[in-house]
Amino acid sequence: MFKAIVSADTLGAALDSVSVLVDECKVRLDEEGLTIRAVDPANVGMVDLELSASAFESYETDGGVIGVNLDRLEDIVGMADSGQLVHLDLDEETRKLHISLDGLEYTLALIDPDSIRQEPDLPDLDLSSEIVIEGADIDRAVTAADMVSDHIALGVDPDAEEFYVDAEGDTDDVHLELDREDLIDLTPGEARSLFSLDYLKDMNKAIPKDAEVTMELGEEFPVKMHFDFAEGDGHVTYMLAPRIQSD
Amino acid sequence: MFKAIVSADTLGAALDSVSVLVDECKVRLDEEGLTIRAVDPANVGMVDLELSASAFESYETDGGVIGVNLDRLEDIVGMADSGQLVHLDLDEETRKLHISLDGLEYTLALIDPDSIRQEPDLPDLDLSSEIVIEGADIDRAVTAADMVSDHIALGVDPDAEEFYVDAEGDTDDVHLELDREDLIDLTPGEARSLFSLDYLKDMNKAIPKDAEVTMELGEEFPVKMHFDFAEGDGHVTYMLAPRIQSD
Amino acid sequence: MFKAIVSADTLGAALDSVSVLVDECKVRLDEEGLTIRAVDPANVGMVDLELSASAFESYETDGGVIGVNLDRLEDIVGMADSGQLVHLDLDEETRKLHISLDGLEYTLALIDPDSIRQEPDLPDLDLSSEIVIEGADIDRAVTAADMVSDHIALGVDPDAEEFYVDAEGDTDDVHLELDREDLIDLTPGEARSLFSLDYLKDMNKAIPKDAEVTMELGEEFPVKMHFDFAEGDGHVTYMLAPRIQSD
Repeated sequence: MFKAIVSADTLGAALDSVSVLVDECKVRLDEEGLTIRAVDPANVGMVDLELSASAFESYETDGGVIGVNLDRLEDIVGMADSGQLVHLDLDEETRKLHISLDGLEYTLALIDPDSIRQEPDLPDLDLSSEIVIEGADIDRAVTAADMVSDHIALGVDPDAEEFYVDAEGDTDDVHLELDREDLIDLTPGEARSLFSLDYLKDMNKAIPKDAEVTMELGEEFPVKMHFDFAEGDGHVTYMLAPRIQSD
Repeated sequence: MFKAIVSADTLGAALDSVSVLVDECKVRLDEEGLTIRAVDPANVGMVDLELSASAFESYETDGGVIGVNLDRLEDIVGMADSGQLVHLDLDEETRKLHISLDGLEYTLALIDPDSIRQEPDLPDLDLSSEIVIEGADIDRAVTAADMVSDHIALGVDPDAEEFYVDAEGDTDDVHLELDREDLIDLTPGEARSLFSLDYLKDMNKAIPKDAEVTMELGEEFPVKMHFDFAEGDGHVTYMLAPRIQSD
Repeated sequence: MFKAIVSADTLGAALDSVSVLVDECKVRLDEEGLTIRAVDPANVGMVDLELSASAFESYETDGGVIGVNLDRLEDIVGMADSGQLVHLDLDEETRKLHISLDGLEYTLALIDPDSIRQEPDLPDLDLSSEIVIEGADIDRAVTAADMVSDHIALGVDPDAEEFYVDAEGDTDDVHLELDREDLIDLTPGEARSLFSLDYLKDMNKAIPKDAEVTMELGEEFPVKMHFDFAEGDGHVTYMLAPRIQSD
């Protein structure tokens, strides 16, 4: 059983954060809320989404897992005007999700969860640096790096107490330094890792420009980024595996 | 002889309603105003446009029929700013239409009307149901149906006093019900017909979101939709032939 | 040595006026400011750009010539918000230009100036007519002409004291007449020349709609167009060779 009412904006933001990495996903339902964990086919980028029951206008479930085509569901939710409510009602027998918004009813066929790539474990890493940064600054760094290269180094200089971004192209380079003044917060430690820009660009699409993003970095380790949405009732964690440094 | 001045907005709306179905058309001129009737090459969708002389700032003609390339004429009219006036002046000898707006003169070669597909007769059908609906609701129904299918059923349930829309896809379905409260007016009768979504999407493009659209429906019969524009001085009727129900 | 600070808007406008004609260019630096001269590969359209030192927040150079990839530089400058300042700093040893905006540093590899097409001489022509016209009117003429033809005639009728534009297509024609009332200023003389519309469309892209453009025209002679930007501290001259009249 699953029956819920939620604002289209909240549901849309939740779906967007997952759909930048995968087309289909398992949605876990329990009384606390809904969670989605997914990893891209190459096992490089992972997402962990939590949308707590308090993010919903009403929320009832006795638990379960459903398989969802994200594009379809996003298209339907995208038809709603901002602030409109979306009603979700699971039909367990037919394995269909009834979605209604303002008189419009959409019957979405669910996917067998067993046919969907297994959910990843997000490893509990002990990363040396923690940076709290505005979403807009991540966007700026990613956009600039994309002009010159297809990979990007993220690092922290503990002496200078700076977070930095490096992208080296064949002829041109991009460099961005943000110190304590420019950041929301910084817990410095030796850290530098190289990442595929494609994945970071995808994740960046789902990060609100005004979000406070907490970034955890290490030495040639994955980066973790987390941020809240829906006034704190929604939470996204991205994890991106490093590329091997070529030098 | 044909000499007229009309606002670019009015002329643009008139042309748009026809150009969604055909590229070329005959324009009939008489002292009452201008009329265009056209049917698409597959004989599925028809349009009947009336723009009365009172829609013009000035209007003079002694009658006649001209053949027009709609894309060309729309491009020219599209150059005008909102509220700007377009001057039309027919040169009978050269069979060219002189169009001027704000100092710019465009000479449009007309098409021999005999080379254009014959104008259809819009049959006088006795349809059982009449629905008066906002253009925005048609847009919503068409957009949602388009997510799942390439055809759409429009119907009326006389007992429930509801107008409904059904689209059945391979896996997903869309359903919309609008009762008296949601509609502007309803004269219910048994009615349900299936239509090609492509045609309805084209017609929908030309229906203003804030228009009151009168829709006449029957049992496996064509649908008629009409609406006014230019403050009532312009009137469009669309007629769309049904598809054969597959079940 | 070259070290300067300039608003992104001013630098962007300067680069745009050149990049509509060429991809790479030589930038001449001296204490008066920066100048760029370039001609397109077919030797049909030329540009002469001057951006005086007073257009910059700060400007220091001991002279020199650098070769620049315009697309790259435009992309970087395009990342700035309106009103933001761009810092430019030339590293003579590495032949790289350091560009920084709001903490972001971009290192642009310069091009060997000797590998770039030679700068043209803009001939000092004695043209019979001078028209001062709003950029918006050039845009209107070019857009309308483009509907019917790939070339455009610009002329002056000294008796009627009118500037006119003619474009003749296979079936349709466009004509625009602007008299003293419509123009900012007119010094009439016999003038009519035919031009390639493609070039004029490119130049038109870089002409601000609210610019006062001075156009010099002759009988089957090149047209010169000049306008100021950056509150008079920037100046662009375009010159476009005529096409041979086909009749």
